[in-house]
Amino acid sequence: MAREVFDFARLHAFDSTLRDGAQGEGISFSVQDKLGIARALDELGVDFIEAGNPGSNAKDLEFFRAAKGLRLRSAKLVAFGSTRRKDTAPGDDGNLRSLLLAETDYVAIFGKSWDFHVREILRATLEENLAMIKDTVEFLVSEGKTVIYDAEHFFDGYAENPEYAMASLRAAAEGGAAVLVLCDTNGGAPLGDFGRLTALVRESFGLPVGIHCHNDTGLAVAGSLLAAEAGATQVQGTLLGFGERTGNANLSSIVANLELKQGLPCLPEGRIASLTRICRTVAEIANIPLDDGMPFVGYHAFAHKAGMHIDAVTKNSRSCEHIPPESVGNQRTFLMSEVAGRTMILERLRRFDPSVGKDSPIAAKLVSIMKERELEGYQYEGADASFDLLVLKNLGRYRPFFELGYYKIIAEQAQSAGQSRAFAQIKIAVEGESHVTAAEGDGPVHALDGALREALGRFYPAVSRIRLTDYKVRVLDSRTGTAARVRVLIESTDGEDIWTTVGVSTDLIESSWIALVDSFVHKLIRDLERRLSRD
Amino acid sequence: MAREVFDFARLHAFDSTLRDGAQGEGISFSVQDKLGIARALDELGVDFIEAGNPGSNAKDLEFFRAAKGLRLRSAKLVAFGSTRRKDTAPGDDGNLRSLLLAETDYVAIFGKSWDFHVREILRATLEENLAMIKDTVEFLVSEGKTVIYDAEHFFDGYAENPEYAMASLRAAAEGGAAVLVLCDTNGGAPLGDFGRLTALVRESFGLPVGIHCHNDTGLAVAGSLLAAEAGATQVQGTLLGFGERTGNANLSSIVANLELKQGLPCLPEGRIASLTRICRTVAEIANIPLDDGMPFVGYHAFAHKAGMHIDAVTKNSRSCEHIPPESVGNQRTFLMSEVAGRTMILERLRRFDPSVGKDSPIAAKLVSIMKERELEGYQYEGADASFDLLVLKNLGRYRPFFELGYYKIIAEQAQSAGQSRAFAQIKIAVEGESHVTAAEGDGPVHALDGALREALGRFYPAVSRIRLTDYKVRVLDSRTGTAARVRVLIESTDGEDIWTTVGVSTDLIESSWIALVDSFVHKLIRDLERRLSRD
Repeated sequence: MAREVFDFARLHAFDSTLRDGAQGEGISFSVQDKLGIARALDELGVDFIEAGNPGSNAKDLEFFRAAKGLRLRSAKLVAFGSTRRKDTAPGDDGNLRSLLLAETDYVAIFGKSWDFHVREILRATLEENLAMIKDTVEFLVSEGKTVIYDAEHFFDGYAENPEYAMASLRAAAEGGAAVLVLCDTNGGAPLGDFGRLTALVRESFGLPVGIHCHNDTGLAVAGSLLAAEAGATQVQGTLLGFGERTGNANLSSIVANLELKQGLPCLPEGRIASLTRICRTVAEIANIPLDDGMPFVGYHAFAHKAGMHIDAVTKNSRSCEHIPPESVGNQRTFLMSEVAGRTMILERLRRFDPSVGKDSPIAAKLVSIMKERELEGYQYEGADASFDLLVLKNLGRYRPFFELGYYKIIAEQAQSAGQSRAFAQIKIAVEGESHVTAAEGDGPVHALDGALREALGRFYPAVSRIRLTDYKVRVLDSRTGTAARVRVLIESTDGEDIWTTVGVSTDLIESSWIALVDSFVHKLIRDLERRLSRD
Repeated sequence: MAREVFDFARLHAFDSTLRDGAQGEGISFSVQDKLGIARALDELGVDFIEAGNPGSNAKDLEFFRAAKGLRLRSAKLVAFGSTRRKDTAPGDDGNLRSLLLAETDYVAIFGKSWDFHVREILRATLEENLAMIKDTVEFLVSEGKTVIYDAEHFFDGYAENPEYAMASLRAAAEGGAAVLVLCDTNGGAPLGDFGRLTALVRESFGLPVGIHCHNDTGLAVAGSLLAAEAGATQVQGTLLGFGERTGNANLSSIVANLELKQGLPCLPEGRIASLTRICRTVAEIANIPLDDGMPFVGYHAFAHKAGMHIDAVTKNSRSCEHIPPESVGNQRTFLMSEVAGRTMILERLRRFDPSVGKDSPIAAKLVSIMKERELEGYQYEGADASFDLLVLKNLGRYRPFFELGYYKIIAEQAQSAGQSRAFAQIKIAVEGESHVTAAEGDGPVHALDGALREALGRFYPAVSRIRLTDYKVRVLDSRTGTAARVRVLIESTDGEDIWTTVGVSTDLIESSWIALVDSFVHKLIRDLERRLSRD
């Protein structure tokens, strides 16, 4: 079956968050995390997702298997590996065989272009290395793969031995590579080289050229843009700049610059407006707080603090903003000012009561409640369901459904590790009728979830359909040690909808309880509203 | 008394951490902070320190008074202000009078070069603005000041009305400005403009040119370097990139690139080797954690994680490092991880037993234990102390110090929120002697910490010196809801050392317990080793 091969000559984005990004400190993706990130990147319109090195990491192979169930709109998955071993035929090379097990149409192969690395690290002759490159690419092409060739250390290699660096690219081209990617692996190439060498390689081989930068000198985005201007059509990076040392080129910055500054679109039309949302989703999944000051997508990228600037931006936003924040799906904020939040609160209020006016006391009250809550550590950005409950309470339309008598947790561990047990007992009252239940769980929160479900299920059978699909913990003022405040976010689904709730307390069990109760109540209110609207 | 005027035609660094950097979110410097930062910048060899706007901020004037006691080696303090008001003579302008009260030899004055801003924000005529620029500079020169002229929004202004942007510079030059600084105030200028317009302005006015970039597109460092290449001799920035929105150009990156990459020295000889230390000092004073991934100076700027890279850098550091870390006073580190592999484990093993050979069974055993542990969710990257304990256990040199009988947690909440309580009871045995203690806490982990401290304190008084300084929680397979595995990292100190330990379990309390015990044991082992080595 003939498969359409991608046109590498058109400018496109290649994301390596799941491969090179996984080298970043503190990053450790589960297979579920990787599937979620791949979905988000596809939604943004990235053309290639490099998702792992199945030869060096068994977990990566597991991902490629699971990924067969992903129905990606347009992104193509890429498995990554190295050229064959020195004394092994490609077909006998274990790593290459693992690469094939990933069953992707596209593979990325890296090979050495720096003579110094060939001699000192590979301990091969210069000729052996060229044969390794050519053979490997040829073999993979014969297996039906489209090969993206990564010329590792290309810029350093070219600086010391330009003939050899070019010979290594020639070997890949002769092997049948579809695109030659110039890598600044150590991240230290001079700024002037990116455009110059991209142009040179394009002319020399007549093949599409890609660029892969690292940020060791703070120039990765600039280098990528200069290469794209000089004709590179594959821009590689990691969406949030994750990567070893100082990180890889930040793909969100590259893409925004190409689309909005350089007039070189590389995403499907209109997708750039989802950039901020997608970046925040990926940060959430990775559980790495997004840098507030990240260009284009950070929470403060359009935050004005200086009074002078606030004044100017209010007169005319163009005066102090290089682009409209909406163009990347971000928003203008004013730090330490009441203006922030109000518009958003009004918008949510009106969903429940369209008659609420701009200067209504309820809006003002909610603004001040929100401020108080945020000082306590609440954050409603990712927790719509909890925010809606707050609105309903203040509109006098909240129905508690049940009252808590108490909850009690017992958690214990006998001598040996791994023997811990947790029990929860709760007492609730529904319309005057009390009920006590207990449950055992994998930990205190799991036990609490079980007991609450049991107690409520008797009165509201619909709660049995709730499943908790995500549970996140962030320690807020972590410097105060184990007495710190803790924010818990719980994502739930009933198979139809997904909602997220939040709880904050110095006691992690209480934080979880607050978020748990909000989740159950959200479901009950929504079901009730649906019934009412049907009647 | 004739004073020597600085030669602006020689490449030099201008830091605005204390002025533009103070606009960054979360930054608020005391006078003491500012004095400390000024001292650190002087030590680095920055030529100019822009330290505040005495016209708009009374606290800034206080700093300039206090700064008279600073004996700076070579740095010169600069007071910052704006051109005179529209209808006021310079000598009658309150802000300019405040500027003079700072009593600095050098002042920086910003004026408008964008016609749009003149009309819409200043609400002045184009001619009025030119007169304001010229008058102001002239007045300050007549007062004996050397004037650095900041052309605000120069790049945006030039793009829309080049004649007017140039006319604004001419007004400053005619007024007697010593240097013309081109500012990309909104941070959105195209990369190609920095070099081109710098060269143009140099040729047009025959005056030294400066560059002032903001990082809204992630290109501030690149833009500054391109301007310097084109002949700009004053590079402005903030040492750590502090500033409004996405921050100012990161001066530490600029300086390191100029010195080490572009062969354009801008600091006194040898000072670049103190860059990392100075940056960390400034971060400490500002109480802003230094970004681990910051180019050149971050903790991870030379941290290797991929096994392949660790292997290569061990063979020859040049293979995976763009500069020797020592050249900026930083150091190489290896992160513990499943990919890091053997080299790193060997290095740690040899700290405890230098006789361990490369192929020793103990090294192989530890590699496989590490792999298993990492599948369970352990991550030793940030948790050296737990890793060392693992090594000691496998060397047969671990001493448990105590045995756990059990721990038991009771956590409960009565009706109203905020009323939660947590208690822990534990039983431990030390050399056959049992002991039961209990404690109440702000949450289950806090209670457990209290009970363990109480129990151990009786046998090992040194544990009272342990303070937990950081507590981090990461839900691993968060998609399985509240039954997910949880990794806890605890950072502890005894006032002398800082160490980090890790625990993983599906039960958060157990994860915390494991990390807590490792922390206490680490302290006891280290104290014991110190005693032994003294004896």
